[in-house]
Amino acid sequence: MNKTNDNSMTFGVAGTGAYLPSRIVSASELDRMMGRAEGWTARHAGVLERRWVEKETQSEMGAMAAKQALAEAGVDLREVDTLICASGTPEQPIPCTAARILGAMDNSASHLAAYDINATCLSFLVAFDHAAQLISTGRSRCVLLVSSEIASAGIDFTDAESAALMGDGAAAVLLSREAGAGKVLAFKMRTFPEGLELAELKGGGSLYHPTRRAFRLENYLFRMKGKQLFKLVSQHLGAQVSSLMQEQGLRWKDIKAVVPHQASGPAVDLLGKRLGIPEDKLLRIYPQVGNTIAASIPMALHELRKRTPLQRGDKLLLVGTSAGVSIASLLFEI
Amino acid sequence: MNKTNDNSMTFGVAGTGAYLPSRIVSASELDRMMGRAEGWTARHAGVLERRWVEKETQSEMGAMAAKQALAEAGVDLREVDTLICASGTPEQPIPCTAARILGAMDNSASHLAAYDINATCLSFLVAFDHAAQLISTGRSRCVLLVSSEIASAGIDFTDAESAALMGDGAAAVLLSREAGAGKVLAFKMRTFPEGLELAELKGGGSLYHPTRRAFRLENYLFRMKGKQLFKLVSQHLGAQVSSLMQEQGLRWKDIKAVVPHQASGPAVDLLGKRLGIPEDKLLRIYPQVGNTIAASIPMALHELRKRTPLQRGDKLLLVGTSAGVSIASLLFEI
Repeated sequence: MNKTNDNSMTFGVAGTGAYLPSRIVSASELDRMMGRAEGWTARHAGVLERRWVEKETQSEMGAMAAKQALAEAGVDLREVDTLICASGTPEQPIPCTAARILGAMDNSASHLAAYDINATCLSFLVAFDHAAQLISTGRSRCVLLVSSEIASAGIDFTDAESAALMGDGAAAVLLSREAGAGKVLAFKMRTFPEGLELAELKGGGSLYHPTRRAFRLENYLFRMKGKQLFKLVSQHLGAQVSSLMQEQGLRWKDIKAVVPHQASGPAVDLLGKRLGIPEDKLLRIYPQVGNTIAASIPMALHELRKRTPLQRGDKLLLVGTSAGVSIASLLFEI
Repeated sequence: MNKTNDNSMTFGVAGTGAYLPSRIVSASELDRMMGRAEGWTARHAGVLERRWVEKETQSEMGAMAAKQALAEAGVDLREVDTLICASGTPEQPIPCTAARILGAMDNSASHLAAYDINATCLSFLVAFDHAAQLISTGRSRCVLLVSSEIASAGIDFTDAESAALMGDGAAAVLLSREAGAGKVLAFKMRTFPEGLELAELKGGGSLYHPTRRAFRLENYLFRMKGKQLFKLVSQHLGAQVSSLMQEQGLRWKDIKAVVPHQASGPAVDLLGKRLGIPEDKLLRIYPQVGNTIAASIPMALHELRKRTPLQRGDKLLLVGTSAGVSIASLLFEI
């Protein structure tokens, strides 16, 4: 997908919200859990602390973030016509997580559509563009995007490299026709299946279903081949963003902020250096929350709105990578 | 979601394909497996035979169906800009199933975007409307929709009511701007979370993750409360379809065919009777394939195109229900 849009109807970000579990896991605590020297986790992953759930469920966290976004916008759930769960992992295989989030918000709701979009860590980008299309074509007036992840459930503590990164949390973004004159200026996404095995969680679907293969806990843990993933991403990410900027005739001075997927400290550093993004425009939340899979980008967007007043005409670049391997970038004018 | 569209750009169905595993499981065989009297399965579910995979994987089946759709259309994968997996169950939690289907088609592909849309049995309807939006706004030129399901992995043989229904298979639909002057005239979808527990497969996501709860095989099997589901659906489905037809000023004589989700024999019968759909316009494939979850509607659409030449201006109504519980109907003019 590589096209730009000329939509007739515009939209705005009416509200955002986030939910973080109360349990804070420090880098030092993780060093001890994995039998590493003090300082290893902070140095290798760049993550100082992350949140892990205790009793919270994925749908409950999503509902908390969603309610915060509605409250900030002053919009009632009854005004929302579409609820999209943009998460990289499900709460259950059946039904979809969006229906369960809706149930956690209001079990008697009956007026809106709820479904999931999944592009692993890029789910929010795909869902954001989809929501923009729904509003621009007049199909929807008000779309609630919710990303909620419990990354801690699948941590493989024998793989310090990935274990050091993962955090839990949820974020929500409410888009509505009435809330502004924003539009998606460009969206690019490419998938490279040569990298299918570079980031995987195998168990939970049909391939490793326990009626078809003997149950082994290790199949339910996240595995990443970090170096190869980094290499594949670095071959393509810079070129994609550069061409998007060039096609739009934009320089970094024209961009209010870059909101990247918080894959890891080194990953965000790579993005910044490769593309020469000014340090003050590159949003970093991973030191405090780690990699929260698909919740990462909307959580960073929520943080940005808390830190910086955004104004009509501001341009934001959302960019990231995911298992698959996929790379995507979305340019959005508020 | 309840709005109609006035899209500037139109699209057409360039090709369709389907893949069915070679192993046929007859109703009599299932009667014996479940210790029921000969004839019970056929009588209760209306399913005479269904296919179950032996060695096929979900992504392989999806790739086979997708290649058939491309071949029928005379379109190369290089012309496709977006591949959407519209399945109700994943092959693995990470990465998304679309990336794995793409890998099974061409592991060196690098030009297109691949992601999943999941609304359980209604995934294809949501993805079809989304693809229509992508094309109508100029974002995409050619979108490949693939639904692939291995329902047999999660069968609970102690629950004859649901076990009698489930079949495996895949179907694909290629939509392109060049292939016609079609458009989605209306799409309605509503989710009723009061019915969250009426159809579930709990294990495979975060809630029943084996690091968080002791592994129990029964959590990985599909459970359905058939009577309550039937009651909830029958309260709302007829009203939704009637209001869609009324808003569009249409009668059944104006509709070329109704392509329903093949949930079960009784479910399709209910739809036909409640709405007074003429028998020759109501497509039934469940006697031969059963309920193939989200592959059901595109497989029926593929079958319709084999049976009946479709012409410009023909109107098709796609309609169904899903776990969640959701109800949706989509009116599409070719």
